[in-house]
Amino acid sequence: MPAVGLGLWKISRATCADVVYEAIKVGYRLFDGASDYGNEKEAGEGVRRAIKDGIVKREDIFITSKLWNTAHAHDHVRELAKKQLADWGLDYFDLFLVHFPISLAYVDPSHRYPAEWFGDDGKVHLQDTPLHETWRAMEELVDEGMVKNIGLSNAQGSLLIDVLRYARIPPQVLQVEIHPYLTQEPLVKLAQLHGIAVTAYSSFGPASYIELSMDQGAASLFENDVVTSIAKAQSKTQGQILLAWALARNLAVIPKSTTVTRLVENFEAANVQLTAEEVKRISDLNLNLRLNNPVDIDPRLGIFA
Amino acid sequence: MPAVGLGLWKISRATCADVVYEAIKVGYRLFDGASDYGNEKEAGEGVRRAIKDGIVKREDIFITSKLWNTAHAHDHVRELAKKQLADWGLDYFDLFLVHFPISLAYVDPSHRYPAEWFGDDGKVHLQDTPLHETWRAMEELVDEGMVKNIGLSNAQGSLLIDVLRYARIPPQVLQVEIHPYLTQEPLVKLAQLHGIAVTAYSSFGPASYIELSMDQGAASLFENDVVTSIAKAQSKTQGQILLAWALARNLAVIPKSTTVTRLVENFEAANVQLTAEEVKRISDLNLNLRLNNPVDIDPRLGIFA
Repeated sequence: MPAVGLGLWKISRATCADVVYEAIKVGYRLFDGASDYGNEKEAGEGVRRAIKDGIVKREDIFITSKLWNTAHAHDHVRELAKKQLADWGLDYFDLFLVHFPISLAYVDPSHRYPAEWFGDDGKVHLQDTPLHETWRAMEELVDEGMVKNIGLSNAQGSLLIDVLRYARIPPQVLQVEIHPYLTQEPLVKLAQLHGIAVTAYSSFGPASYIELSMDQGAASLFENDVVTSIAKAQSKTQGQILLAWALARNLAVIPKSTTVTRLVENFEAANVQLTAEEVKRISDLNLNLRLNNPVDIDPRLGIFA
Repeated sequence: MPAVGLGLWKISRATCADVVYEAIKVGYRLFDGASDYGNEKEAGEGVRRAIKDGIVKREDIFITSKLWNTAHAHDHVRELAKKQLADWGLDYFDLFLVHFPISLAYVDPSHRYPAEWFGDDGKVHLQDTPLHETWRAMEELVDEGMVKNIGLSNAQGSLLIDVLRYARIPPQVLQVEIHPYLTQEPLVKLAQLHGIAVTAYSSFGPASYIELSMDQGAASLFENDVVTSIAKAQSKTQGQILLAWALARNLAVIPKSTTVTRLVENFEAANVQLTAEEVKRISDLNLNLRLNNPVDIDPRLGIFA
């Protein structure tokens, strides 16, 4: 799995195909999508255009997608994955993740897609599908060749350990929120100890949430004194320092960008070498500040409690 | 379930029967035991003596016990519960908890009891029993009348939510470490929202761990300025304030004591009324400082990551 990929969250349908195409041109080989992002058709267009233009072959790129909460029941897993592959125009995903360990009432894609969090009545409807049922269906996608690898997103340690107890095919990747205000050392250590690669999302911290008014008032990491001083010392941007910090911890990163300049800047973070002391200074910024928490949507969704 | 009980952890076999007997005499009706505490026979002796002396009837008291990690496999759950009931000399437990969401290799009680964490080779041996198998066996104990209620100890939010998805008999109680340095508001809120009673263990914080050299160097709560000043204002002991703080949050508490004076003192914490402002001042001491974490025993046991 490439260490730096493009995160497709919040990239508009109008620009998504072009952004993916440009990203491939500047060297990106990993694209991180999800049913919930609502732009998988367009992302697939960008990929297919790049393949058609001879820039890459399918086997050169790594496509991640994610199963949404409303499709956790055994039969819905396969149904949704099939639709998502059709949207991308692909035969297989390189990685398919359970987006959240949260099971919501089924929504037929013909009724509403992406299904999002709320029912037609504006309320959250839970569904009693245990994760072991969902995981069994995920494993069957591997058996069928629809996905090469499977994993979890937004899981805590105890749930990860439980999945490891029953998994016929263990999770290969764990994707969780990680930035200098939420460093998650214990979870990263646990996953890496079990040979599970960890992908950090929201590497830029509050900046990723300001446009959604979900930044919780936290100070920007781009204006943080520690980050800024290291950026200056290294002659790099703050964004590159934030990504390099994650890479130094053996995390994969999936920053989003929609401009070529920024795409290049983020991609080149892989060449930034931080000293152990710089990594530590950034890690010391930890506030256990979680920005993406479904409990803010409904109090029953306390998956990080 | 009574709000104040006697925790049997670390009470020596030599004193346990007498302590339980004295506790019943001063009014305790809940006793919190576990296979792992190694004193269930002696605790049972104390209970039977009090019943024999006409101080209480069986139905007046509430006995909690816990399933150890080495007996998570379906058939071992019943086997261990049966042995534990025999040790206590009881027909049923009022509450039986899964002690940790950790499955270790089976140890026959005739070989070593309590089984504790390490195998004969001094190493931790994991066993692939998923929690849903253990929980099904726990439910069968209720069906058989061996236990009245079942619950979890040391579980995080996402695991609790997963158990709620598949439980035929949902957990009635969650017992977790809670004190002013680890206030756990999100987890308490989640459990209480689902109608699950929460029991706080280690109410006195670091003081409970000093004798095990596990206090992690944290300052004593008994010497904390906030706790001390509230104790002075209320003309109560610091211990009573710490218990009253938990009780004010609708938590049950299970302080350990081995002297009659302290037994009475702890029991009377139920009569201490803290103001909302006092509760808040104590809650603001939170440091997310966890004292009992199995990851310190083996890095694979990161159930709180």
